[in-house]
Amino acid sequence: MNLLFLGTSAGVPTKTRNVSGIALRESQGKGWYLIDCGEGTQHQVLHTKLSFHSLKTILITHEHGDHCYGLPGILASAGMGGRKAPLTIVAPAGIKAWLEATCEATQLCLPFALKFIDSDELPSVAFGSMAITTFRLSHRAPSYAYGFTETKVDAALDVDKLAQKGIPRGRLWGQLKQGVDVEFAGERLKSHDYLIFKHKPRKVVVAGDNDQPDLLFEACKGAQVLVHEATYTEEMAQKAGDVGHSYAKLVAAFAETVQLPNLVLTHFSPRYQLNLKATPSIEDIRKEAENAYSGSLYLAQDFGEYTLDKAGHFTEVAGK
Amino acid sequence: MNLLFLGTSAGVPTKTRNVSGIALRESQGKGWYLIDCGEGTQHQVLHTKLSFHSLKTILITHEHGDHCYGLPGILASAGMGGRKAPLTIVAPAGIKAWLEATCEATQLCLPFALKFIDSDELPSVAFGSMAITTFRLSHRAPSYAYGFTETKVDAALDVDKLAQKGIPRGRLWGQLKQGVDVEFAGERLKSHDYLIFKHKPRKVVVAGDNDQPDLLFEACKGAQVLVHEATYTEEMAQKAGDVGHSYAKLVAAFAETVQLPNLVLTHFSPRYQLNLKATPSIEDIRKEAENAYSGSLYLAQDFGEYTLDKAGHFTEVAGK
Repeated sequence: MNLLFLGTSAGVPTKTRNVSGIALRESQGKGWYLIDCGEGTQHQVLHTKLSFHSLKTILITHEHGDHCYGLPGILASAGMGGRKAPLTIVAPAGIKAWLEATCEATQLCLPFALKFIDSDELPSVAFGSMAITTFRLSHRAPSYAYGFTETKVDAALDVDKLAQKGIPRGRLWGQLKQGVDVEFAGERLKSHDYLIFKHKPRKVVVAGDNDQPDLLFEACKGAQVLVHEATYTEEMAQKAGDVGHSYAKLVAAFAETVQLPNLVLTHFSPRYQLNLKATPSIEDIRKEAENAYSGSLYLAQDFGEYTLDKAGHFTEVAGK
Repeated sequence: MNLLFLGTSAGVPTKTRNVSGIALRESQGKGWYLIDCGEGTQHQVLHTKLSFHSLKTILITHEHGDHCYGLPGILASAGMGGRKAPLTIVAPAGIKAWLEATCEATQLCLPFALKFIDSDELPSVAFGSMAITTFRLSHRAPSYAYGFTETKVDAALDVDKLAQKGIPRGRLWGQLKQGVDVEFAGERLKSHDYLIFKHKPRKVVVAGDNDQPDLLFEACKGAQVLVHEATYTEEMAQKAGDVGHSYAKLVAAFAETVQLPNLVLTHFSPRYQLNLKATPSIEDIRKEAENAYSGSLYLAQDFGEYTLDKAGHFTEVAGK
């Protein structure tokens, strides 16, 4: 699995950072998921190898403009680029009505079908080799985290267990190996019980705007990676007043509590500069988080790319 | 007056060209008008000296997404940047309803008032030192051209005429010089009749998508510059079928007929490359237009900037 950040700025774009958009690629093939689609996300995609033809699903964390204003344009461009395959959009209910109003007002007739899934009605849905689970967050608007868990994991047959059960070698072994449940001697045998998984399934959680990271306690069970906003440092968050966002220390302390191996912070207020010597700088956010978290910490940059390998090792792809 | 192109691509953005957006600056001060606001226009503005605080009016030529999807985001960013001054939007009627639906759906509460003027109801309105006139075009959706004419032009008093009329030197002369009509000997004297204008007022016409350039016959009277789409060459337009757009030769022939001094083409199909050796290239559009037009021809590029001076001379600003 691969994460590619298309925008890391909160609220408004800057000269060097766009508003929210994250591409999550599957480990095999070209299929990808887009989480949030702020204005200009399609422009960012033009500078990557991603294709609108292999986009499987768009998931919107919440209905604020910096997370969804790029939606009409990306759909229009996918259509003009010749996409015919239906596209699923997982989003808060209001997004469907808004997109329909937008299509009507701007004469946008897409040459592919849209299938909407209300985020609230998606406890867990499998998309090919990925299971996606929804978690409710705390923000000024209904906001969600999406958990992506791979469903096809390399596994070996548990030969001893098969022998004990008296299951003969051959077709049944093959089916169980492929993840197919079988009937044997009047009993339903679950593939899962006769496989030895080489690794835990990979799991990445991508959260929307949220001022209570501990709502992600369940979501983070078994996850190797959490992507979460850290709009401010603690001091700046206090100055800004309560706006429904997290600050570095808050997220980092949560990640420490649940012993999360990898934390990627994003959605930085535009007042934080990339320049290390600037005040305030994104380094202020890094320092605050580092002091509260002992796992591997990453601060996302636009076009920053990360890989989570089969063994669950998470690394930044060099040269981005 | 100054024109700065923020996007010159038709339909979809490319790596090097954004969708439609043009900034027209007044000759004095920082005031500017934005004509069309495709997705990513606010991102382009970040790379210029333009400020959302000095934006006077946004004018939308028609309701297609590549001309208006940047509107919610630019308003949101102006608000987050601290704009308080009311903003006028001149647009086809549907844009108002769509923007209101967008604000509602995405919790966008602007800290400044929006004043909408339906393009159809704007025969001519003065904005400070600029008179804006609307002209109806031919496209798949209601589409408009906007004519910008300066209202304050350098002028000298017609001293001989004043003397003949027996108007004494002093306060009345001063008022007439300032463009103020006065009462004298029971008669209303119009300032305009006692001034000798050093130059014709500057006039620029910016047209939206349009497949009948000759609809601009009246609009182009007295204009030094017409900005018009040339989405295709004639051959490509025929291949594309009737889509409500113009091709180079059609616009150029019209400009020749009305003896327009300066023609700026824009809104090129993304299939036309900037690279001169590519096929098709934007040079194909230039060549076709040059063959039909003897005035000064310009093909707009993103961030290309042009100045129309007091004397009506139109030139490209170097180094852009």
